[in-house]
Amino acid sequence: MLLHTIAEVREQVKEWKKQGLTVGLVPTMGALHNGHKSLIEKSVAKCDKTVVSVFVNPIQFCPGEDLDKYPRTLDEDTKLCDTIGADIVFAPSPAEMYPDAQMLSNDFLTYVIPPFFYVNKLCGKSRVGHFDGVCTVVNKLFNIVQPDFAFFGEKDRQQLIILKKMVKDLNIPVDIIPCPIVREESGLALSSRNKYLSANGKKEALVLSKILNNIKICYNKGIKDINALKETAYSMLNENHSLEYLEFRDKNNLEEKETADSDTIVFIALRVEDVRLIDNIEL
Amino acid sequence: MLLHTIAEVREQVKEWKKQGLTVGLVPTMGALHNGHKSLIEKSVAKCDKTVVSVFVNPIQFCPGEDLDKYPRTLDEDTKLCDTIGADIVFAPSPAEMYPDAQMLSNDFLTYVIPPFFYVNKLCGKSRVGHFDGVCTVVNKLFNIVQPDFAFFGEKDRQQLIILKKMVKDLNIPVDIIPCPIVREESGLALSSRNKYLSANGKKEALVLSKILNNIKICYNKGIKDINALKETAYSMLNENHSLEYLEFRDKNNLEEKETADSDTIVFIALRVEDVRLIDNIEL
Repeated sequence: MLLHTIAEVREQVKEWKKQGLTVGLVPTMGALHNGHKSLIEKSVAKCDKTVVSVFVNPIQFCPGEDLDKYPRTLDEDTKLCDTIGADIVFAPSPAEMYPDAQMLSNDFLTYVIPPFFYVNKLCGKSRVGHFDGVCTVVNKLFNIVQPDFAFFGEKDRQQLIILKKMVKDLNIPVDIIPCPIVREESGLALSSRNKYLSANGKKEALVLSKILNNIKICYNKGIKDINALKETAYSMLNENHSLEYLEFRDKNNLEEKETADSDTIVFIALRVEDVRLIDNIEL
Repeated sequence: MLLHTIAEVREQVKEWKKQGLTVGLVPTMGALHNGHKSLIEKSVAKCDKTVVSVFVNPIQFCPGEDLDKYPRTLDEDTKLCDTIGADIVFAPSPAEMYPDAQMLSNDFLTYVIPPFFYVNKLCGKSRVGHFDGVCTVVNKLFNIVQPDFAFFGEKDRQQLIILKKMVKDLNIPVDIIPCPIVREESGLALSSRNKYLSANGKKEALVLSKILNNIKICYNKGIKDINALKETAYSMLNENHSLEYLEFRDKNNLEEKETADSDTIVFIALRVEDVRLIDNIEL
């Protein structure tokens, strides 16, 4: 069932709650791929009812980012959701989510702001305001759908950690369910932005997962020194790769690690053909 | 029923919701007076079940404010709530609401931040960060109690307007019910901070309501010019009154008025015996 208004979603969810049914929410920006598919499948398996939201959220795009050209494929998305067994696809217009379209700055809109310590690093460093937009829209979606569970991919690991922190800090009555990264056979982590890559770009993009796998192999062999682990990575880069960061951080609070250990996540971001790609791995 | 933990409140409210009962929330900082009493009575009359929260919220006090000396009278508060017919008094410890007591800054805690345009004026001007703390704790209380209705006094009118904006912006499924200011026979608006005043201070404090009433009388007589209306007020002040602001603003978005009209609220804040007092009136 494709719904476009908040009122319709609320009415339907209210009906379900009356019947004592559990509700899962899978928040997406559409352009669904097998990564999203795995989230939706997990929700369908775990919850009585599943809502997939499809909304390209303007306030999480920074100036100069790809808001306008971000892929929009609602017909295909709806079909996929139906096939998997989702009950509602909620695809609101920007005006439905933000009635005052000209008033999206924090001068005129209430924002949910994650802690500075969690956002002043990794993707948050180059994407200023991005996680403010994410937390705000996820908070809105939680308030609209009132799900019991919400499903997020580990691909956007910083986002996942920030959202778990938001839920804890604000006592939001939603269980966040993390879902493993889905990869192509080649190892490339699925992302809606992979569509921007040429065939050759996709090959070059394999360096992200190769670096992470290699670091994990070295770590498992006993190398815990982070500089040594980073060196193995740098040697794998070529002139087609523009590295943004390669960092070792705590899986709960994103603190920088001094030595690699089992609480460590390795985060990488780099550009191939000017497309920004991210990946991560737990040691 | 006096409850101290979030888990207990959630369990009780869940039980009520299963029975299809409506829930009202009256958020307070305790030191309950007849103003609070009127909020609780309104909730008891309107809702099947009423929760009164009593929590002196540290993050809404600014440096140098009266967090430590703020009156705490939980025994009397609980008795009053019982008498009026509230079902739960929720009095959490600071650690229950903020488990990391040393980490209350926005470096380490997720905040709900109201729009700058709504907070950079009136009380927000001198109480920097105050409304961030208010919005954050009210959001937490909404998530904990999940009320259908929440009751706030018009005495804290800027707070009320900001909270209504928060509910709208974040699609929070709670109806905010504004409740009229309760006054002593003398005209003094009730406030927990009135306890700080001497007998003479209470007399001097009557100037707030006198100024507002006088402005309303002049307005009703046909004076719409704001400077003229302000002049009538200034003449009523003496050396015991330290005026912080006297402003004419729109009742929905707090925009400054050029001419007094029926959408105007007159806001006043002044200090008597170094106690900060506020009041307001709708024209």
